[in-house]
Amino acid sequence: MLAEIITIGDEILIGQIVDTNSAWMAKQLNLIGMKVKQITSVSDDAEHIMQALSEARKRAEVVLITGGLGPTKDDITKITLAKYFNMGFRRDEQTLKHVESIFERFKKPMLDINKKQADVPDGCLVIQNKNGTAPCMWFEHQGTIFVSMPGVPFEMMYLMDDEILPRLKKAFQLPVIYHKTILTVNIGESFLAQEIEEIENSLPSFIKLAYLPKLGQLRLRLSASGEDEVLLKKEVDHYAALIINKIKPFVVIDQDLPLEKALLDLMESKNITLSTAESCTGGYIAHLITQHPGCSVVYQGGAVTYSYELKESVLGVSKKTLDRYGAVSEQTVEEMALGALAHFKTDYAVAVSGIAGPDGGTEDKPVGTVWIAVAGEGKVKAKLFHFAGKRLQNIERSAVAALGMVLNLVRENRPI
Amino acid sequence: MLAEIITIGDEILIGQIVDTNSAWMAKQLNLIGMKVKQITSVSDDAEHIMQALSEARKRAEVVLITGGLGPTKDDITKITLAKYFNMGFRRDEQTLKHVESIFERFKKPMLDINKKQADVPDGCLVIQNKNGTAPCMWFEHQGTIFVSMPGVPFEMMYLMDDEILPRLKKAFQLPVIYHKTILTVNIGESFLAQEIEEIENSLPSFIKLAYLPKLGQLRLRLSASGEDEVLLKKEVDHYAALIINKIKPFVVIDQDLPLEKALLDLMESKNITLSTAESCTGGYIAHLITQHPGCSVVYQGGAVTYSYELKESVLGVSKKTLDRYGAVSEQTVEEMALGALAHFKTDYAVAVSGIAGPDGGTEDKPVGTVWIAVAGEGKVKAKLFHFAGKRLQNIERSAVAALGMVLNLVRENRPI
Repeated sequence: MLAEIITIGDEILIGQIVDTNSAWMAKQLNLIGMKVKQITSVSDDAEHIMQALSEARKRAEVVLITGGLGPTKDDITKITLAKYFNMGFRRDEQTLKHVESIFERFKKPMLDINKKQADVPDGCLVIQNKNGTAPCMWFEHQGTIFVSMPGVPFEMMYLMDDEILPRLKKAFQLPVIYHKTILTVNIGESFLAQEIEEIENSLPSFIKLAYLPKLGQLRLRLSASGEDEVLLKKEVDHYAALIINKIKPFVVIDQDLPLEKALLDLMESKNITLSTAESCTGGYIAHLITQHPGCSVVYQGGAVTYSYELKESVLGVSKKTLDRYGAVSEQTVEEMALGALAHFKTDYAVAVSGIAGPDGGTEDKPVGTVWIAVAGEGKVKAKLFHFAGKRLQNIERSAVAALGMVLNLVRENRPI
Repeated sequence: MLAEIITIGDEILIGQIVDTNSAWMAKQLNLIGMKVKQITSVSDDAEHIMQALSEARKRAEVVLITGGLGPTKDDITKITLAKYFNMGFRRDEQTLKHVESIFERFKKPMLDINKKQADVPDGCLVIQNKNGTAPCMWFEHQGTIFVSMPGVPFEMMYLMDDEILPRLKKAFQLPVIYHKTILTVNIGESFLAQEIEEIENSLPSFIKLAYLPKLGQLRLRLSASGEDEVLLKKEVDHYAALIINKIKPFVVIDQDLPLEKALLDLMESKNITLSTAESCTGGYIAHLITQHPGCSVVYQGGAVTYSYELKESVLGVSKKTLDRYGAVSEQTVEEMALGALAHFKTDYAVAVSGIAGPDGGTEDKPVGTVWIAVAGEGKVKAKLFHFAGKRLQNIERSAVAALGMVLNLVRENRPI
């Protein structure tokens, strides 16, 4: 079952915005068993849009379209779709009421141009967009389904999750798909593949294994496709357990969660708290953690200590240590972690100090040299990493390694 | 002059990675006066790749291709291009030497599969890729230029900047283009448009004005196209000065820089330092700043104080203030900013406390309520914001507003 995604709008083509929608949509479609054949970004140009629609329908049974649904005259998706399907317009009363209620809520005057948001091609199914004024439109035409959605990410996501994906599953009687994701850190792809080679070779043909690497993390995704959900789940869980058993020290969690969210969940379940002491990661670990609602149960706060002085005054690292071993050293990160524990009164603390680059490297400590320490419940552990990326990659990889070390220490201290 | 971008690889189509390359490339192409007509993502499938090439050449004179150049057998871009152009293969000695030198540098054994990186279609121009093993290939075929580049972002970026863009400018004798970008914060698009309407209407036809909004920031880009660079620069600078004069309080800088980098440059030039005290932004401001090499001249560090306790112990906010006014209040952010100044010994400090959501809102202080204070050189200013986005948007908008406030206070204190 093939789908295509078409994004409409000049913003992407002039490089003003990055198209994050398509990757998200592609992932969701894959999870329900639909493969994406092509993603196409076209401009707000009627002829070009129609050409893209015609080409997509030759290859796919579902064409998902985002963007170009605003009220201004440069947004021409709706009028172009009507033309393409040879349809007239009707005013959709339910959409009109919805648009009116939004303007009322924000106490803004409603113009004629806003009322036009409720005009839709007369042969489409209108699906209400709870989070915005542009309605979602579903067309079925000569065996192909076309769905037009707004390009605003959270409006599109809500529509996909609540409306489009369930309808697609129903329309195509897609097979039952069962996935299990195993998140690992600090293990290379080829080493991991070698470790689980035998298990991989023994997988039944209805279970596929995908390696999904991302900056120091590697997700293994087992996907089974069939008819009997209970059986699929049983089989996938069986093989997942074999894999997890084989590579236990590297496994973070057997769910598709961001690493920091898995750590937050684990620490919340154990009722323990965390603080951070960051030098080269410059607040990135704190930012990763605080993206997640409810993180404050676990995360109390932290310090970004870029200067020597703040490492001393805020974290209590001794001047002697800094002078003798330097800021990027085992001794300094250990004192940073212990200082964070003491000053921020948390159960665990993680500290990072390194050379993110591009400058600041020396022969002894080249760019990418990073020391990380984690302290908690009477233990302190420090580890040296050598990353070889650009500044931002070194920051991101350091954060992943740091989160992985906290997770491992929590597991070690609290095995059950 | 039209260009198209084709990305090759299943990673994008299964949603494993977001295609950031295309937006970056599109932006660079626009800056030299080439419009991007379409961006297409296709899978590692020879027939599909060839179809995309054929369709792209119908619309554009330049087709830029990324991805699918790895040494493993699922990477088929090179072999497909040879087939498409009906070319044989030759081993490129210069590329071979380069690949060998990379393996030597990393002290890794070189396999036959790696040597194959040096095999190229015999009718293409090989452009060396300093940062990786996959060479860049330039084809000219029946009036269209095709360029194949690796998908690794920094390899592609280096090739574009140093090799491809200069060659395209030469190949098409593109007109001279002169741009000037004016970065503004805290001003709405329609209000700004109204303010500069007269100036916009008086622009000569060879100067275009683009509005590029992004989360609380708005970039105005003046682009002039012609033959005489001196004249273009003179005219654009003239109109830029008129615009800047008209909207002065909102202008950050007349360069195309990230907001935080503009602030760092300004503070470095004045020889003053900065610290941060973040609650709801959770380290994001620190992360934005510390992405930039050399930031440590200005940025000393900061605190992420999620809990009440850390607001007291790390920043010295009084318990009385927290109890009486709450964490999200004018009084608390002012004390946070002053506390950061005192504890982190910097010339300026910025503090943020708000309700990022989705939980934690009350009737008085709904989700999106954010107080920001900036302190420096004897002054403290606090301001209340109401953002209405999702958690991450509220965090990002708060950071932009905070950086804008620091900038304004520095300008006020040091007008020259």
